[in-house]
Amino acid sequence: MRDPERTRGRILSAGFDYVYRQGFRATSVSEIVAAAGVTEGAFFHYFPSKNDLGYALADEVLREMMLDRWIRPLAAYGNPIKGMTVRYRKLMEATTDEELSLGCPLNNLTQEMSSVDPVFSDKLRGVLLEWIKETERYLKKAQADGYMNPEVDPRRTAEFLVMMEEGSAAIVKSLGGRKTYLSMYEGFRSYLDSISTRREKTGSRP
Amino acid sequence: MRDPERTRGRILSAGFDYVYRQGFRATSVSEIVAAAGVTEGAFFHYFPSKNDLGYALADEVLREMMLDRWIRPLAAYGNPIKGMTVRYRKLMEATTDEELSLGCPLNNLTQEMSSVDPVFSDKLRGVLLEWIKETERYLKKAQADGYMNPEVDPRRTAEFLVMMEEGSAAIVKSLGGRKTYLSMYEGFRSYLDSISTRREKTGSRP
Repeated sequence: MRDPERTRGRILSAGFDYVYRQGFRATSVSEIVAAAGVTEGAFFHYFPSKNDLGYALADEVLREMMLDRWIRPLAAYGNPIKGMTVRYRKLMEATTDEELSLGCPLNNLTQEMSSVDPVFSDKLRGVLLEWIKETERYLKKAQADGYMNPEVDPRRTAEFLVMMEEGSAAIVKSLGGRKTYLSMYEGFRSYLDSISTRREKTGSRP
Repeated sequence: MRDPERTRGRILSAGFDYVYRQGFRATSVSEIVAAAGVTEGAFFHYFPSKNDLGYALADEVLREMMLDRWIRPLAAYGNPIKGMTVRYRKLMEATTDEELSLGCPLNNLTQEMSSVDPVFSDKLRGVLLEWIKETERYLKKAQADGYMNPEVDPRRTAEFLVMMEEGSAAIVKSLGGRKTYLSMYEGFRSYLDSISTRREKTGSRP
């Protein structure tokens, strides 16, 4: 008997790949089971319906991806604001051309499914709210340690930063191309500089 | 015989309303002709197919709406950077709750149709590029008149500003609510302040 957690993980991983490339509604269960190398019976054992797979993609895959990309790297920096700038640049450099043209998977699934299904909407909004909350936590730390202007509101700033992180992927997807991504990076860095204290600027050279 | 331009305009206007509220693919020609009070024959006289109506929505309705909202108001300001801040606040105040929950019509149609139909993709990208180009033109004016930091690149900054204008609508749509919009306004203003010269800041009180 196969390891059940591994089977479930393979279904999730294949599901993510298809949904990211062609959208949730255009993806069929038979495509996913073929790519995962499992039976339909195994699929429906773990996910009673295709929608349940979609909810698990939000709750597990997209949530983990958001934390891995945007939040967990910040723990390595004494100054979280500087960490946000460096992390953005590293993410930009690691993004493949295919990912540039596909855009952000959270944004895409939200646009496709939020108005169709309220459960999707709640789960995807949950990932976005956690992204904001974790960003706010690091901004408060930056403020407490004297790296961020004490007059700046951490919650509002966190909402604005997450908007820029999501919005960048969307405009790069629409316009296509790395040059636009570089414009986004420079704007992002310039904004972070503007909320930093003079104690330590994030640096104008990467 | 009816005024042909008026008939065409009524079809476009009804088409915009339906497509904005329920998406392009979910909208039928029969819904549009019923709302516009015209015959199907009249519809197909002006638009050989539903896609042709969609292209006209991009080329005409969305383009005009973008210019009316984001560009034309700037002509009234000696300092375009200050104009951008005031215009953003006025747009925020004029946005209805329904519009908040529906998001930006250009962004929605781009997400829905760009990967489906390359003609849509080109036309919607054209509106976005014109938005950026017109924003760049005003930034160059601001720079020439000494309102913008001479080291800031107008093209890259225009791309970043349009990303924020589009991205704000998307996150407000996802999170729902005016408080988020206010966070976006404050971030937007703070960024514009950071690229202004000391000659005239955009003002921290609206």
